Amino acid sequence: MNAQTASSLEFALIARHFTRPSQRVDVVQGIGDDCALLRVPSGMELAITIDTLVGGVHFLLDSDPYGIGWKTLAVSLSDLAAMGAEPAWATLALTLPDVNEPWLQAFSSGLFELADQYNVALVGGNTSRGPLSIALQAHGFTPPGQAIRRAGAEPGDLIYVTGTLGDAAVGLDVRLGRLDVPIPPEEAAYLCARLERPEPRVAAGLALRGIASSAIDLSDGLVADLGHILKASQVGAVINLDSIPRSTVLRGLSVPWEKIVGGGDDYELCFTVPPDRQALISPTINKTPIGVIQSEPGIRWCDAKGHAVRIEATGFRHF
Amino acid sequence: MNAQTASSLEFALIARHFTRPSQRVDVVQGIGDDCALLRVPSGMELAITIDTLVGGVHFLLDSDPYGIGWKTLAVSLSDLAAMGAEPAWATLALTLPDVNEPWLQAFSSGLFELADQYNVALVGGNTSRGPLSIALQAHGFTPPGQAIRRAGAEPGDLIYVTGTLGDAAVGLDVRLGRLDVPIPPEEAAYLCARLERPEPRVAAGLALRGIASSAIDLSDGLVADLGHILKASQVGAVINLDSIPRSTVLRGLSVPWEKIVGGGDDYELCFTVPPDRQALISPTINKTPIGVIQSEPGIRWCDAKGHAVRIEATGFRHF
Repeated sequence: MNAQTASSLEFALIARHFTRPSQRVDVVQGIGDDCALLRVPSGMELAITIDTLVGGVHFLLDSDPYGIGWKTLAVSLSDLAAMGAEPAWATLALTLPDVNEPWLQAFSSGLFELADQYNVALVGGNTSRGPLSIALQAHGFTPPGQAIRRAGAEPGDLIYVTGTLGDAAVGLDVRLGRLDVPIPPEEAAYLCARLERPEPRVAAGLALRGIASSAIDLSDGLVADLGHILKASQVGAVINLDSIPRSTVLRGLSVPWEKIVGGGDDYELCFTVPPDRQALISPTINKTPIGVIQSEPGIRWCDAKGHAVRIEATGFRHF
Repeated sequence: MNAQTASSLEFALIARHFTRPSQRVDVVQGIGDDCALLRVPSGMELAITIDTLVGGVHFLLDSDPYGIGWKTLAVSLSDLAAMGAEPAWATLALTLPDVNEPWLQAFSSGLFELADQYNVALVGGNTSRGPLSIALQAHGFTPPGQAIRRAGAEPGDLIYVTGTLGDAAVGLDVRLGRLDVPIPPEEAAYLCARLERPEPRVAAGLALRGIASSAIDLSDGLVADLGHILKASQVGAVINLDSIPRSTVLRGLSVPWEKIVGGGDDYELCFTVPPDRQALISPTINKTPIGVIQSEPGIRWCDAKGHAVRIEATGFRHF
C-alpha cells in the first residue's frame, strides 16, 4: 500500500530461488498463476497445517538462513507426522525486510534440501516487505479415518516419545552463550543442530497409523504437548522422569527436568498405544515408553522408584 | 524461542474468536489438532493461494480491524475467483504484537462476515507474537482442466474488466489525507470502502469457466496484472483508456490515468474472451470491454479516437 522502492529485477531474483520444476504428477499448476492447482489422490483425505516463524521470536535474527529454511519446513512436516500424514506440497509466505541475495540462496537451499528428502513440492508462495517472518503451510494425505488424532488416548495406554528430549532447549542456551559449563565444540554443534535442523519424524508417524491411539509432535515441550493429548482425550498420565530418553551429550550436563520437559523445539513425537497393540509397533521406530495414561486428569511425575517428583514447567509460551 | 510472558488464558481468548462449528461436511477435522483433515470432492482439483498482509505495508496500522479481517480473506478469495475456483476453506497465520481483545473481536467479525457469504470454513490457524502480520491461505475447487489460467489469451480476444477501477487507489489518498480537493463524506466513505472492503468477484469467476481464455485479479493495478496475462500468454494488448470503467465518484475527481491503471487494490477481475465466445458471457457479470489482445508484445494505450496516449505506471511494487 505504501510506496515501495525495489524493482521487478529484485522480484525476479526472489522468484528464481523458489521456482523449480516439480517432479510430482499431482501438481497441475505450481508457482506462477493466481492459484496452484493440485490433485489429491482418489479416496485420500487432505491434511494441512500452517505455522509461522517470526524472526527474533522463533529463531535468532542472526541464525544461519540455511537452518531457518530447513526448520521452516521441518516444523510443519512434524505436524503432518503427528497425524500420520504423508507429505506432498508446501506453500510459503515470506516477509523480508530487504532483498538479501545470499540470505535467500541459503534459506531456499535449506528448505529444498529437506523438501527433497520427502518429495515435497513448493507449489505456491508470496513475498512481502516487512519484519522478517515466514509462514509455511504443509499439505499431506491420509487414508480416510486413519489420521492419528490428539483425542483417542485411553487409561492403560502406554505413552511413548521418539528420539531424545531436551537437546534443542540446551542448544538454545549454547546459541545464547548462557550455558554455565564449557563443552567440547562437537557437543555444542550437536545441540545446535538439534535446535536448528530438527528431523521431522515422518516415517514414525506413517508407521503408527492404525496402531497409536493418539499422537502429537513436541514443539512446545512434553508438559504442554502431552497436556493437549490429555485434554483432548479427557484423561491424565503418570510419567517416569528417569525413563525420559536423553542424548549422551545431555546426560553429561546437569540439565534440570524443567528444561527437558518444558523447553520445547524437540520436534519428536509423543504417542500412546493400547496394551493389545504393543506388539504391532514397528521395530524401526526409535521410541521409549515414558509412562501410562490414567483416568485421573493432569500429569503426575515420578522417579524410577515411583516416588513423586514436583515439576514446575509450562512449555513454550507463544504469548 | 525467547521467553514469552502471556498466559494460557490469553491463548484461549485468541482461540475463542476463531473457533466455530463448521457447517461444511467436507471438514473432517477443523481447528484443534496438529492438522486439519479435509475431503476434496471426488474428481475436483484443489486450487490454493496464500497471501500476507503486513501492518504498515498492506494496510494502515490504525485501520479498522473489521476491515482488515474482511480484506485478509477477500484478497485470497479474489485469487480463487481469478482461477474460476469455488471457495471452500481458509487457514490463518496471525502474528500479533499483543493480545488486544476488541481488535481480535472486530478482526474475526470482519473475516467471518465475508467467510459466511461464501460458505468458507476457517479450518486451521496459528498465532505468534511479533509485528502485526496476517497470512491467509484460501482453498477452493475447480473441475479438472477448467481452471482459468493467465496463459491462454490469443490475438483478437477481447479484454474485459469487472466493476470499476481506481476507487481503492483514491480511497488510500482519502485515508492518508492527501486528496487535493474536498469531497462529500458519503463519497469519501464509498472510496474508503472500496479500499478496505473489496468484494471478491467469485460469482464472475465461476461464470467465466469455459468461456474466458485467461484471467487474473487486479491486486497490483491493471498495468502490472494485465502484464502478467500478456507475459504468460506471450501476446500484447491495446487498451482504450476512455473505455476503462470508473465510478461516478471517481469521474467527479480529476484522477490521473496512472493512478487508475497503476494504483492497485481494485480486486476486480481482468479477463479475455475469444471472439466466438462473446455471446456466452453471462449477462449477470458486471463487465466492460477495454481493449483487444494483439500479437505484438507490450501494452499500447489509446483514447476513444484511437490516438496513442503515454502512460507512466508500473503498479504496486512489493519491493
